[in-house]
Amino acid sequence: MEKRVYDFTEGNKDMKALLGGKGANLAEMTTLGLSIPLGFTITTKTCGEFFEADGKFPKGLWEEILEHVKTLEKNTGKRFGDTKAPLLVSVRSGAPISMPGMMDTVLNLGMNDEVAEAVIGLTGDERFVWDAYRRFVTMFSDVVMGQERHAFEKVFDRVKEKEGVEGDTEVSVKGLKETVEGQKKLYRMLLKEDFPQESMEQLRRSIGAVFNSWNIPRARTYRRVEGIPDSMGTACNVQTMVFGNMGWDSGSGVMFTRSPSDGSKGLFGELLFNAQGEDVVAGIRTPIPIVEMKEQQPHLYKELEAIAETVEGHYKDMQDMEFTVEKGKLWILQTRTGKRTARSAIKIAVDMAKEGLIDKKTAVKRITPNNVDQLLHPQFDPAAKEEATMLAKGLNASPGAAVGIAIFNADRAEEHGKAGEDVILVRPETTPDDVNGMVVSQGFLTQHGGGTSHAAVVARGWGKPCIAGCEDIKIDNSRNLFTVGEHTVKEGDWISVDGTTGEVFLGKVAKIETAFEKETELIQALEWADEIKSLGVLTNADNPEDSVKARQFGATGIGLTRTEHMFFDQEGEEISRRENVVNMILKSEVAAPLLRQLDAAKGGEEYDELKKKADANKDVQEYLQALQNILPFQRKDFEGIFEAMDGYPVIVRLIDPPMHEFLPPREELLQEVTELRCRGAKGEELEEKEYLLRVVESLWETNPMLGLRGCRAGLMYPGLTEMQVQAIMEAAVNMKKKGVDVHPEVMIPLTSHVNEMHAEYEKLNKVAEEVLAKAGIDLHYKIGTMIEIPRAALTADEIAESAEFFSFGTNDLTQMTFGISRDDAEGKFLLNFVDRGLLPSNPFQVIDREGVGQLMKMCVDKGRATRPDLEIGICGEHGGDPSSIEFCHLIGLNYVSCSPYRVPIARLAAAHAELDHPRKK
Amino acid sequence: MEKRVYDFTEGNKDMKALLGGKGANLAEMTTLGLSIPLGFTITTKTCGEFFEADGKFPKGLWEEILEHVKTLEKNTGKRFGDTKAPLLVSVRSGAPISMPGMMDTVLNLGMNDEVAEAVIGLTGDERFVWDAYRRFVTMFSDVVMGQERHAFEKVFDRVKEKEGVEGDTEVSVKGLKETVEGQKKLYRMLLKEDFPQESMEQLRRSIGAVFNSWNIPRARTYRRVEGIPDSMGTACNVQTMVFGNMGWDSGSGVMFTRSPSDGSKGLFGELLFNAQGEDVVAGIRTPIPIVEMKEQQPHLYKELEAIAETVEGHYKDMQDMEFTVEKGKLWILQTRTGKRTARSAIKIAVDMAKEGLIDKKTAVKRITPNNVDQLLHPQFDPAAKEEATMLAKGLNASPGAAVGIAIFNADRAEEHGKAGEDVILVRPETTPDDVNGMVVSQGFLTQHGGGTSHAAVVARGWGKPCIAGCEDIKIDNSRNLFTVGEHTVKEGDWISVDGTTGEVFLGKVAKIETAFEKETELIQALEWADEIKSLGVLTNADNPEDSVKARQFGATGIGLTRTEHMFFDQEGEEISRRENVVNMILKSEVAAPLLRQLDAAKGGEEYDELKKKADANKDVQEYLQALQNILPFQRKDFEGIFEAMDGYPVIVRLIDPPMHEFLPPREELLQEVTELRCRGAKGEELEEKEYLLRVVESLWETNPMLGLRGCRAGLMYPGLTEMQVQAIMEAAVNMKKKGVDVHPEVMIPLTSHVNEMHAEYEKLNKVAEEVLAKAGIDLHYKIGTMIEIPRAALTADEIAESAEFFSFGTNDLTQMTFGISRDDAEGKFLLNFVDRGLLPSNPFQVIDREGVGQLMKMCVDKGRATRPDLEIGICGEHGGDPSSIEFCHLIGLNYVSCSPYRVPIARLAAAHAELDHPRKK
Repeated sequence: MEKRVYDFTEGNKDMKALLGGKGANLAEMTTLGLSIPLGFTITTKTCGEFFEADGKFPKGLWEEILEHVKTLEKNTGKRFGDTKAPLLVSVRSGAPISMPGMMDTVLNLGMNDEVAEAVIGLTGDERFVWDAYRRFVTMFSDVVMGQERHAFEKVFDRVKEKEGVEGDTEVSVKGLKETVEGQKKLYRMLLKEDFPQESMEQLRRSIGAVFNSWNIPRARTYRRVEGIPDSMGTACNVQTMVFGNMGWDSGSGVMFTRSPSDGSKGLFGELLFNAQGEDVVAGIRTPIPIVEMKEQQPHLYKELEAIAETVEGHYKDMQDMEFTVEKGKLWILQTRTGKRTARSAIKIAVDMAKEGLIDKKTAVKRITPNNVDQLLHPQFDPAAKEEATMLAKGLNASPGAAVGIAIFNADRAEEHGKAGEDVILVRPETTPDDVNGMVVSQGFLTQHGGGTSHAAVVARGWGKPCIAGCEDIKIDNSRNLFTVGEHTVKEGDWISVDGTTGEVFLGKVAKIETAFEKETELIQALEWADEIKSLGVLTNADNPEDSVKARQFGATGIGLTRTEHMFFDQEGEEISRRENVVNMILKSEVAAPLLRQLDAAKGGEEYDELKKKADANKDVQEYLQALQNILPFQRKDFEGIFEAMDGYPVIVRLIDPPMHEFLPPREELLQEVTELRCRGAKGEELEEKEYLLRVVESLWETNPMLGLRGCRAGLMYPGLTEMQVQAIMEAAVNMKKKGVDVHPEVMIPLTSHVNEMHAEYEKLNKVAEEVLAKAGIDLHYKIGTMIEIPRAALTADEIAESAEFFSFGTNDLTQMTFGISRDDAEGKFLLNFVDRGLLPSNPFQVIDREGVGQLMKMCVDKGRATRPDLEIGICGEHGGDPSSIEFCHLIGLNYVSCSPYRVPIARLAAAHAELDHPRKK
Repeated sequence: MEKRVYDFTEGNKDMKALLGGKGANLAEMTTLGLSIPLGFTITTKTCGEFFEADGKFPKGLWEEILEHVKTLEKNTGKRFGDTKAPLLVSVRSGAPISMPGMMDTVLNLGMNDEVAEAVIGLTGDERFVWDAYRRFVTMFSDVVMGQERHAFEKVFDRVKEKEGVEGDTEVSVKGLKETVEGQKKLYRMLLKEDFPQESMEQLRRSIGAVFNSWNIPRARTYRRVEGIPDSMGTACNVQTMVFGNMGWDSGSGVMFTRSPSDGSKGLFGELLFNAQGEDVVAGIRTPIPIVEMKEQQPHLYKELEAIAETVEGHYKDMQDMEFTVEKGKLWILQTRTGKRTARSAIKIAVDMAKEGLIDKKTAVKRITPNNVDQLLHPQFDPAAKEEATMLAKGLNASPGAAVGIAIFNADRAEEHGKAGEDVILVRPETTPDDVNGMVVSQGFLTQHGGGTSHAAVVARGWGKPCIAGCEDIKIDNSRNLFTVGEHTVKEGDWISVDGTTGEVFLGKVAKIETAFEKETELIQALEWADEIKSLGVLTNADNPEDSVKARQFGATGIGLTRTEHMFFDQEGEEISRRENVVNMILKSEVAAPLLRQLDAAKGGEEYDELKKKADANKDVQEYLQALQNILPFQRKDFEGIFEAMDGYPVIVRLIDPPMHEFLPPREELLQEVTELRCRGAKGEELEEKEYLLRVVESLWETNPMLGLRGCRAGLMYPGLTEMQVQAIMEAAVNMKKKGVDVHPEVMIPLTSHVNEMHAEYEKLNKVAEEVLAKAGIDLHYKIGTMIEIPRAALTADEIAESAEFFSFGTNDLTQMTFGISRDDAEGKFLLNFVDRGLLPSNPFQVIDREGVGQLMKMCVDKGRATRPDLEIGICGEHGGDPSSIEFCHLIGLNYVSCSPYRVPIARLAAAHAELDHPRKK
């Protein structure tokens, strides 16, 4: 039979899967020689067996537990129910992956009426005994027996009320004893049995409850959010109790070996005297910062420092430890890798690498893309903050700036959040039951609790701004509002929370970007990442400003310049670009077919005649003139971009959207014309609108995404893409003359057939050569294509005959491969499908490797079969998503391109991909 | 050096590629012992060399020709320019593929002033000599020297005018001589040289001209239409002249060995006395039907019959022969496989198989899908014909019924035809120069010409109705109209032509389907095809009537029943289906999310509460009631279909289109609401429209093709597809109880991810099992999916885990794989791209094998890897296209499904696929 129970001396930290994080660490720490209360662990596998047996102990388990209890009794010299040396234990869950506060715990197990009296006799400490008993009854009733905890706490509250005190420690011994009696009575009333006095029975039931707690809704919710499989199960740790509530020379504390908030060296944590661990985490009383111990209890502080160094040296990472001081003696209850803010994570990783504790690769690997994302979270504009009304200041529990409507309850927060609204969840304090509302909120604001309270821990984990313990605000939950002095914030009112400073503001405060250049540790880590990664990281930028910013973020070129906006008016230009575009489109009705004929006739007999006809045609001339009018503007735009990207490649995508996007919307015109007609309008006003409507209708498409756009427009509107390429190449020439190192690459969108690619290539290459010949300048340029239509991927071997580079447009590729129009689908069914598990994730955020990814892989292989040195990248939104970047690395792309703000994340993710799947030999 | 010139005795019929069709056949016939005028052939390869040498004779060619001329002179005992026995020859083109009337010919070569006088001296037949000379000068000037033929004919016309005669044969000898003199003078004037008297020079120039004629525009147009490669080249045949114009005991004729019109046995053709071959084809004089020869010249007729039997026995196919009678002696000039109508093709193939001349496979192979298509062409409704105004009757030159606007010129016909209008091209007679207009016309009507005129031959080849020689109509080309008695038909007026009867009608005459059941030869051929083919042929049918018809056409099941129309009102039903559907959609706003929650909660704790909530919700109840109201109608519809398809599978596709298609169009509502508001309307009228508009807007999608439809609707509208499956299975049960052999298959549309398939499968299978359990009936059914989204094809291995069958929806699959919305694209750019050669063909008509086909192949392989016996078919429009059917055969599909009228074609195409690529061992 497989071993189901491990003594702490039998395990080690690598046995997390079997012993859970807590159990493995207790074992590891025991081996490490730290003073750990004795105990044993029941494996996670047993949890599975327990569920398979429909919530019953599998055969042999109880006997194995009994043996370990016997060993425990022998080693501690205490025994369950013994009146001389009674054994009290804690029973705790401990999953392989840390799930803070999500699982239930029973403390002081072994307590009963007889033991209570006996311990009082032995220690003389009545207060401690009755307080421990009170806690045990409450927890056992709640956690093990499934009763409302609240009802049991109420018994205590009534005693406090009677005695006229507020704090737990102020209650008299008599009051504590009364509480225990009252709670036992309540237990009997609710459960039709006496509170169990038999310790082994208490233990048996508690272990079952720990296992069962794996499946309570809040645990399930947390796992779903975090993507933890249900099959993992929890271990159960049974450990000798030590007591932080054994008077004022006792206490319980938590500490981090470095700051979880900013990563600075030194102990960080809190200690609550005369209290058990749960009191610290619950944030009921406000604890004392550990740093104050340095002077108050220098001996204890030194001891903690030494332990911190030992565990960091051992675990090579910052540790989050729980400890208890029992009558002056320090016991370590737990150590685990500490959760931390992004800033802290980055600083710790870089510092530890510099300290030689870990190597650079490990440092880079330790920093998650999410860390970088958080560090680059927008912060509030200082000027805007200056002018905003500050309501209150609380604990800066998780950094970043968030703006949203105040919502006072998790369920309603979920409702509003899912409806797409920005929500700030405002709660007295949060509990794991609030997780559903927290998931969708922009940030949290709690009235109570400290830096290790539930809200704070969750917020840092998820990278959301949080202000905790903001006691200035008075929450009235029954009326869904809070007041601060004269101000009242009602549900639905806008507030802004600055998790970095702890300030709460009325209304919406404008945010600004974070100052990347000041993040020296991040910059250091990213430099290490650059040394590691094999993928290039380019950026999507449409103007010089974004290009400059992207370079600062570390982009080494532009993977996508969209040219659409260049057809719209720009501030401060005398001539309207848009008017010319509209005119071009209107004239194209006559001009385009004629010019296409002319193109086709080149070299043929009819050419001269057609040429004469075109030259004489007013529409043709106006059409061509409109294009010529736009040319200088585009050239100017490109010049700025080339200058900003001096030395790096710039990939410019030719015009992509359907032409009707440059005209007024069909519905608007339809309404206007209907109104004009209804009003009996006549003459020019009506005719003009009618004409425009007619043109819009003629351009209108049922499925514009799959319509006349991309290279199709280039092939149907003669001169359009030629004009763009002329502008690009003239800009390149002009900049080169000024000494800029230019690398223009022209990208043809929406290719589906090699013939389209070939026809556009021939045409555009000719224009480019003409510009260069005219300028007498030699300059390397490329013409390639986006791969965004499934057929292009399927026939990449053919397309690579003409295309000199590929760039995956995974937005469109996903739309077509999935047959899903993103504009329509996300709200209508896609997110619902993700929620229901019908889709593993939103394929527009994370590349669908099985489907879209399969096509991409095929495309890469086929493209390189034709042209082995084919440069292939990605410029869809996925280019900034870590999982997708990993996939791009796996299939051998040359680079990813993403928005400037995603560039640092992409650099890191690319390094992770290389570390996990080395491409470099 | 490669041999460039072959004597007729040196070649055979298998050398078409080298000697051209005409040359190979002349050689074959020579070997066969028919009386063929002696001659030789210059190879097609030489034509290529000629063009490579920029229109010059390659080195050595002339010497080789000279040798063959010498042989010819020796064997005929005649010599070029000899005054005793002068040699006259014809020089003709002859490409490997027959291109009727497209290539130029020179006759009577060798004639000159001296020879003319000599031959007159020898034969005393002045008329013949001058007539032949006249023809030679005309042809040589036109074909070889590139002069306007018309100008030379005018010389002859002036002579006729002077003499006051009309027919060529009425002109006096003097007049003919005068004509020759006049023409030679004209030649000198135009070309600044005397008409060449040297025979070898005439020959050299003529051979060059034949080669050059390969590249004249009309030849190129024909090749482009017919898909003949330009590289093929033409051979050049030099053959001793025989003369059909040597008096009234001479003549020229063409004949088919069986009727090219209906395939009946017996000679069919025409003979024109005292005329050369060109006169017959040109339709200038009206020839005498060959059948009349039987009595007029029984000896000649018998000789022709014997020859027909010989060549048919030899070539195993119906032959189209040209012959000349020179002073009573019969010479065969040419034989080739005869062009024929569809009806004729089918009858001849079946007859020949029955006669034992060919085997069944050959017979099936000889019938083209196009033949079947033509035979099933609609004909005019006899009742409608009865009432229509018949204008005239001409020759029934090519069968079928066509309706269109009369257009009097090929270029304008092309214009209108390309604009999507139905056009009947009306011409005095057609020439190869009219091909561009003929391509796009529905049918042709000519005033002149016979059954072998250009219009008739082309019409039969292309399967278009044609009436030729309809002399009743008087065409006035300058005014673009024709008159028949009191009637005037102007350009743009509607007419109807019955190519089967030769009748022309005023206006549009209603057409009806052809009577397939009467086409016994076709039915026979298709039975043979069924024996051969390995693909099943199913049909797309949405109602019992179509199902019955499809069975008659030979369908063995339904591959696609669309259920959408079942949601619309049907004639004579008391309850409105549509109202219920609209109500369901309106109520779904509240009902669907609630019911989805309820579904998700099944088995959970919240279920009871949600159930109570749903039960009490009015919208939910109305939503469910609406579905229940539609159920009995759908059940009734399915019952009818199952009954009609007794014994065969019926694949029913669940609802596919987006819901908004069941509501009024957005634009319509927008206009109505705008108008109502503008008119100051208030109250219920406005509110109702506003409400409807709001719902339509909320359902509105930018790209509905890629939106909430197909299985997505099934997953988002609880109860919808369950209702459909309940209706299908109840209908199946009811029919089975009545003794019908039912095989229902439920098809889920628009699957993109295995999870969707799996979720729908589970849900629907449960409904099906419940229906069967309730009825206590066991019955085999399947649940499968359409493959119409690229991702589904890419992950077919996963999807096949749940799907019990696949059916390719190649319309949508093509749209998504190509990124082309068919609704939008065809007019806007797709047809233009096909025209420009940017796409090889319209991928919505012919499966794109490289792209879409590659996905299909992948899907088949992956699907069968998971489920080796997976049934896979196709139900897109491509299922009725021969090339696509061949592809389906190649990738191993089980069946194709197409519209009832395409079923016979599909059966034949499937047999062809099997013959070309045998799957059966």
